[in-house]
Amino acid sequence: MILSRARSIVFDFFMETILCGVDLGGTKLSAGLFDLKGRLLDKTVVYDHVDKNEDMIVEQIALLVKSLLKKNELEEDILKGIGVGFPGHLRFREGITITTSNLPGFVDYPFKENIQQFFSAPVIVDNDVNAQAYGEYKFGAGRGHDNMIFLTLSTGIGAGIILNKKIYRGKTGTAGECGHTIMDINSDMQCSCGNYGCWMALAGGHSLPKLFQKKMESGIGTLLNLDWNFSYSQVDGEFIKKGLDMEDPVCVALVNDCADYNGIGIYNLFQIFNPSMFMLGGGLMNWGPDFHMRIQDKFSSMIKNMLHDPVEIVLSTLGSDSGLFGAAALVLE
Amino acid sequence: MILSRARSIVFDFFMETILCGVDLGGTKLSAGLFDLKGRLLDKTVVYDHVDKNEDMIVEQIALLVKSLLKKNELEEDILKGIGVGFPGHLRFREGITITTSNLPGFVDYPFKENIQQFFSAPVIVDNDVNAQAYGEYKFGAGRGHDNMIFLTLSTGIGAGIILNKKIYRGKTGTAGECGHTIMDINSDMQCSCGNYGCWMALAGGHSLPKLFQKKMESGIGTLLNLDWNFSYSQVDGEFIKKGLDMEDPVCVALVNDCADYNGIGIYNLFQIFNPSMFMLGGGLMNWGPDFHMRIQDKFSSMIKNMLHDPVEIVLSTLGSDSGLFGAAALVLE
Repeated sequence: MILSRARSIVFDFFMETILCGVDLGGTKLSAGLFDLKGRLLDKTVVYDHVDKNEDMIVEQIALLVKSLLKKNELEEDILKGIGVGFPGHLRFREGITITTSNLPGFVDYPFKENIQQFFSAPVIVDNDVNAQAYGEYKFGAGRGHDNMIFLTLSTGIGAGIILNKKIYRGKTGTAGECGHTIMDINSDMQCSCGNYGCWMALAGGHSLPKLFQKKMESGIGTLLNLDWNFSYSQVDGEFIKKGLDMEDPVCVALVNDCADYNGIGIYNLFQIFNPSMFMLGGGLMNWGPDFHMRIQDKFSSMIKNMLHDPVEIVLSTLGSDSGLFGAAALVLE
Repeated sequence: MILSRARSIVFDFFMETILCGVDLGGTKLSAGLFDLKGRLLDKTVVYDHVDKNEDMIVEQIALLVKSLLKKNELEEDILKGIGVGFPGHLRFREGITITTSNLPGFVDYPFKENIQQFFSAPVIVDNDVNAQAYGEYKFGAGRGHDNMIFLTLSTGIGAGIILNKKIYRGKTGTAGECGHTIMDINSDMQCSCGNYGCWMALAGGHSLPKLFQKKMESGIGTLLNLDWNFSYSQVDGEFIKKGLDMEDPVCVALVNDCADYNGIGIYNLFQIFNPSMFMLGGGLMNWGPDFHMRIQDKFSSMIKNMLHDPVEIVLSTLGSDSGLFGAAALVLE
């Protein structure tokens, strides 16, 4: 009998339980099986969940997990638990979603309870950034850093906060929304929240079209060959990355500004949390090492002699599956 | 035999242990005895410590506590512990001070160890704002608020952070320095830390002379009768309070600005911590209920529909002895 990969690993390590992680995103839905050391045993990914309603997505998640178990010839009772990362706000204790800007619906939806109906193993649902932070703490470069801040620099900006070895969630479960903290009170950059000058408005992916337009209008010449039908709304992280690769002055200046804002944001969080590590993840980190270095330099220029113990500002290590690792790690919290 | 007040309360309640708190400030040094419910049994205050060196202050603290015990006919072994509030940064675990701007010296000074030499009861030394926060959580209006932020609005601005029922201190012990977070990146207001536009620079007592001067120079007429030898350096919280009491337009405008900055600062901390309570203490809260109300209004105008559970913004309740209550409470953490 030929054993599946997951099953053979389970036997190899004489393990009695494995972890299941589910990462629900705006474009992909994935499920993975992990051993207790965070090694990925098998995973499956689908993209056809986006147009489904909440109940249908719940059923799809249940089916995905059950199929993955079956494919690996595993029974459900081998699962220590099922962690689910949700791309938005939720009431953690109740497992009720509040909002998400990545999927339709999910307003006051009893997500955890409805998934739980399909399983006997415990289901834990949390915000995806919290999950990633905890995944990095348990399985990634954050190991040993009992007070660390995981920052996602992406369309939005947010933090997963590990304090005293646990995820810090606050009263409702919405802690870590540092992207909405005001950094430039007189800025004309408006965030989707309605306020002006918050971190996300100044350096988040959502603001790139406006930031690019402002740089263009400031008179810096671009090397980019913009189509006759170019619209600023096309500008996203990848667009800017292409500009960086050809050393386009507009893109370089924009990325430098964003790096400076991120450095200041990290400085602000340092003053509040005095953590031992900041970890940077999210799509905008693809802008590369110069971006990362400038963030560090800005932080250093702000903190001066107020740093009494070293603090690391490192890159996320779990890569494109970090959401899946994080979701599985939730089971171990 | 006539029993002292503390002794009689001890007998009344059949208590076996009491708490000792020591509050070391820039002008006064006080010690107090408390029962386990945080009732002040007796206290003593001195003002002649300021010119002494660190070792002499340690001896004075030991003497103060021992005299207080003797006066109340109590033996040292009745003490559950001695909590000491220090007005500056320290490495909490080691009890080594880093800096203080309120007293000379205390750079890398083994404060806890040196006090401990005089006592068999355990000595705990922490930052005074942390101590106040914990005192309010254990004995004051913060009871039951397991995630709360105590803010001191005074010469400086800082936070004592209660998370999951404990003081959150960070790696070194210097967490809570929210006064140094940047709120107006393009401001010309410089803080003592060297940076511009941080919360303290915009709304802290240290900045009042400059803030008052700027308001005067903006052309707002003042009702204050300024002496021929008036100097802006005289402007402090009390000076502004007198102006408020006579509805001086300059002072009203200045205080409104400070309230707005504080409202934004609290909004920023809310997004990060999602606590159930903010508590406001420190000398500037003497500016009165209009100041408090405007802080709340600014917070509400920023948070809009991002508030999913109620959050209270209340005044500190332990009054002028809050430092002493807090220091004693440290013993119970």
